[in-house]
Amino acid sequence: MPSLRTALLQTSGRPGSVAGNLSALDGAAGRAADAGAGLLVCPEMFLTGYAIGDEVPRLAEPADGPGAMAVAEIAVRHGLAVLYGYPERESGESGEAGERIFNAAQLIGPDGARLANYRKTHLFGPFEQKWFTPGERPVVQAELGGLRLGIVICYDVEFPENVRAHALAGTDLLLVPTALMRPYEFVAESLVPVRAFENQMYVAYANRTGEEGEFDFTGLSCLAGPDGAAVARAGRGEELIVGDVDRGLLDASREANPYLRDRRPDLYTSLL
Amino acid sequence: MPSLRTALLQTSGRPGSVAGNLSALDGAAGRAADAGAGLLVCPEMFLTGYAIGDEVPRLAEPADGPGAMAVAEIAVRHGLAVLYGYPERESGESGEAGERIFNAAQLIGPDGARLANYRKTHLFGPFEQKWFTPGERPVVQAELGGLRLGIVICYDVEFPENVRAHALAGTDLLLVPTALMRPYEFVAESLVPVRAFENQMYVAYANRTGEEGEFDFTGLSCLAGPDGAAVARAGRGEELIVGDVDRGLLDASREANPYLRDRRPDLYTSLL
Repeated sequence: MPSLRTALLQTSGRPGSVAGNLSALDGAAGRAADAGAGLLVCPEMFLTGYAIGDEVPRLAEPADGPGAMAVAEIAVRHGLAVLYGYPERESGESGEAGERIFNAAQLIGPDGARLANYRKTHLFGPFEQKWFTPGERPVVQAELGGLRLGIVICYDVEFPENVRAHALAGTDLLLVPTALMRPYEFVAESLVPVRAFENQMYVAYANRTGEEGEFDFTGLSCLAGPDGAAVARAGRGEELIVGDVDRGLLDASREANPYLRDRRPDLYTSLL
Repeated sequence: MPSLRTALLQTSGRPGSVAGNLSALDGAAGRAADAGAGLLVCPEMFLTGYAIGDEVPRLAEPADGPGAMAVAEIAVRHGLAVLYGYPERESGESGEAGERIFNAAQLIGPDGARLANYRKTHLFGPFEQKWFTPGERPVVQAELGGLRLGIVICYDVEFPENVRAHALAGTDLLLVPTALMRPYEFVAESLVPVRAFENQMYVAYANRTGEEGEFDFTGLSCLAGPDGAAVARAGRGEELIVGDVDRGLLDASREANPYLRDRRPDLYTSLL
């Protein structure tokens, strides 16, 4: 049975310093690889920092931009996949940069290939609603290590419909870069494990920590399993946590908890 | 601002003894009224007990049957509304008893009126699937004390779609008679408070406790608020717990957590 050791980087990052954040990523990727991880999940807007305010347009870049190339180098150097958040500038049809910017997260494979790019569909609060265009594609997936990975970002995971769509599309491990602020600890502590249980999947929830501009992030990153237990759970400070995503345990849990089979979609029409 | 003091009866009951269970209800209703409650919520299949096996057809009765009349007397005597679970025999079109039996829950008002009757839509396990017909109406509601009450039963609440349908229909307080067994403590401890939070409603989850036939119930009944905290939480044994459902707190919480406003139903089409 395949198993994917997954590392989550909980960090405060350096707002506005892409070079500083890439340097931190290089160090974390080395430690994750030393721990046997095949995947490293970083927080929302990891590449640039979250609290970059009016710098969003200047720091945004296309999905195949210089930040992506730098992350690919790090992934190849340490031989593991990396998921990172960043402000994505839409590529224009003629190759010129477009005007729309998305709050995005990209998965780079251990060979440096860009495996998947997701644009946040549920924007949170005035900062995000000012700068970002909401994404229009709810389910973005990629295959890695015999598992189907999906991506959502922060506020997205708080909507049960969004994660259910992933379960129905066969997501085994949902990657959730996040920037969860106080006083929403309940989301990290309770809601994320419930999402994993009710959808019978693993959820890797990688948060920022500490103060950044006007924001105060909660930490409490976790890798939650399909039984609702935390395979790994971070505290409040900077931390790299590691846990295994186990295909055999997932299959057995789905057999014992047949939520997807027992759904009655004909009764859910009011949700649309 | 209206507020509804709500009592939850956590009990093991007496399988097969309707008279014994009604006697227990009378005592509990008296204690709930003494505590100032306007509503008493009892567990799933309270009237007959849950572990009644082949006795289901014999003990099932219509929604206006003798059990309902007895509960109405108790409600009037103590001046509070009562929600109770029971096996409902469908009334035939000619007035004769039909053959279909539902796992139902009925709300009786403080004046003895039958306010709402709900038939469980998601049946759990071989016992229920053998004896009961699944209900076809997902959202059943009633007004009480300035609040809109909804009803689901046990396994129903574990499906996020089901509770979301109630939120979209304006349910303020979701009543959940249940028969939660070991080892599913996670449902009572984590999933129920998350349902309250993500849908910005109160959830009253009233469970059985102790061993009954082949079943071993977990207790851990709770009244969860829209902030995800337990207003009241029972232990493992027999217990009557009481908490307030506060309209003002609910309105403020909905303003601060605009999940229903921030939904993107156009992206949820795969759920149907």
